[in-house]
Amino acid sequence: MTPLHDVAAIGNALVDVIAQASDDFLTDEGLTKGSMQLVDDARAAALYARMGPAVEKSGGSACNTVAGVVSLGGTGVHIGKIGADEFGEIFTHDLDAIGARFAGGVMRDGTATGKSLINVTPDGERTMCTALGAAALLDPDDVDPAVIEGARIVFLEGYLFDPPPARRAFAKAAGLARASDRLVALTLSDAFVIDRHRGALVGFIETEVDVLFANEEEITSLFQTNFDAAVAAVAKHARIAAVTRGARGSLAIAGGEIHPVDAVWVDKVVDTTGAGDQYAAGFLFGLAQGHSLPHCGRLGSLAASEVISHYGPRPEVSLRDLALTAGL
Amino acid sequence: MTPLHDVAAIGNALVDVIAQASDDFLTDEGLTKGSMQLVDDARAAALYARMGPAVEKSGGSACNTVAGVVSLGGTGVHIGKIGADEFGEIFTHDLDAIGARFAGGVMRDGTATGKSLINVTPDGERTMCTALGAAALLDPDDVDPAVIEGARIVFLEGYLFDPPPARRAFAKAAGLARASDRLVALTLSDAFVIDRHRGALVGFIETEVDVLFANEEEITSLFQTNFDAAVAAVAKHARIAAVTRGARGSLAIAGGEIHPVDAVWVDKVVDTTGAGDQYAAGFLFGLAQGHSLPHCGRLGSLAASEVISHYGPRPEVSLRDLALTAGL
Repeated sequence: MTPLHDVAAIGNALVDVIAQASDDFLTDEGLTKGSMQLVDDARAAALYARMGPAVEKSGGSACNTVAGVVSLGGTGVHIGKIGADEFGEIFTHDLDAIGARFAGGVMRDGTATGKSLINVTPDGERTMCTALGAAALLDPDDVDPAVIEGARIVFLEGYLFDPPPARRAFAKAAGLARASDRLVALTLSDAFVIDRHRGALVGFIETEVDVLFANEEEITSLFQTNFDAAVAAVAKHARIAAVTRGARGSLAIAGGEIHPVDAVWVDKVVDTTGAGDQYAAGFLFGLAQGHSLPHCGRLGSLAASEVISHYGPRPEVSLRDLALTAGL
Repeated sequence: MTPLHDVAAIGNALVDVIAQASDDFLTDEGLTKGSMQLVDDARAAALYARMGPAVEKSGGSACNTVAGVVSLGGTGVHIGKIGADEFGEIFTHDLDAIGARFAGGVMRDGTATGKSLINVTPDGERTMCTALGAAALLDPDDVDPAVIEGARIVFLEGYLFDPPPARRAFAKAAGLARASDRLVALTLSDAFVIDRHRGALVGFIETEVDVLFANEEEITSLFQTNFDAAVAAVAKHARIAAVTRGARGSLAIAGGEIHPVDAVWVDKVVDTTGAGDQYAAGFLFGLAQGHSLPHCGRLGSLAASEVISHYGPRPEVSLRDLALTAGL
């Protein structure tokens, strides 16, 4: 069977609720600037009530990656869980509208679609409080074998390693992918998830993951050591790893070899949100096309450079055109 | 009793769904660029399914005016009708968040909050298809006498002259306002409404309206004559009228006198959506402050100039600061 999609991504289905906020507002709300934290529905409602006028748009880390893959000319589906509500409609519509597809589950018991309340301070930093709602209820039944078998790469968003049913969904997807000779990719997503599940994560990476994405903070947290030692450790535990370092570029690691990849220069960094998601998009698209690891890394750097040059975590121009112009 | 608010606005409660579109898309969908048309739920769903990835934010003509009044340092409430859904939450949240308030009704029978599907073409023109949903079901019970009696000016959005229960809500609000010595303002909103209700509108203006807002197209349509004759007619029928003429400024008309008001120069007109809503905001705020008509007109021009210099129908900087800088 020919793969139908480049990437099937499993992650939190979220709608972003974005408002301007002052530094004082963050202080008053006890929020650490630039952080992402999970909140319950009551806390989300109380915070939302105090936030400024907002704009709503589709979000979700892995879904942002799908948007990047599509912008590069690839194809993708998203597997997550939404509620039977208007935010769920927004999420699925926006996937359809970019030529991707939602292939996950819908909660019909009144559970709301997940939302990420994002307060943007005048310095451009985004502070996120996420109420997962339906997103956290992803379970193995939401993973359609045909979707996994029809994708070159299954991409797992680390946030969902936390809820046990979602972790079982990861295991199901990884098992299906391996049985069909597909690649399994994982992004670590978050230091909190790593802290809670360090041992299980390392085990999962060793047995199930072909491609690991992590930034400096995540990789050093995972292996509880300094950066160089963590890179050496990941080279042992993961078949392929891509470790991002912000302006210092990234490392594409495989078979004991470490390929440094430069960041793509950006005149003005406006908003770094989504840099990791788009790096993953470029790298995964490159893998799906059969490119070399350094080439995959350069595609990742290029995609990340576009998204940090404007507000918002999704590409605003065709990444395919950018890649062609850059000779990639 | 001291008025609690400068403006109580009665209008359609709508959430804008905004997407980029090509000229070909408008052609394929049979849409006239720059037009506003009402669509039923089925047509809205079909159109939305074909639209690009979208951004959602609060809209509604009279609600945009309330936002402008608040930005000028005034106070306002909005009376409309929403559904018990997430778009309704967005609408009321955004009013609260600017320091205004939603004082209308909520449909609890599953009727959805109204939405305006807005396709923005590369030239910046916005083509709107509005599914009114709950908004069109406004009725007299949604008009709380205390809210009307507590506002210096009741502002009626002409779109709602169309559904009979909403028109009865207008009559109730106007009656309450007159009994409490408040001003009644009306904006004509739309040529379609004028065509359907010309006689009733003229009658309503003569008997109930203190301040009429109209643009050139609307005023000539209302009186079925050329511009100069229409201005003469409105001077007879309305106590106060403000007629806007785009870049040529506006006319503030009262007591047989016509005061021409210049437009405020804008280096680059980005998007004219909301120009009329914000002109009304400035004019009404001026009236509530007891300013002269030419002063009210200048505040209107200033507010309109801000909103046409960026995308979106609501002010993005403090109109109060702009007015202070301009010596108004």
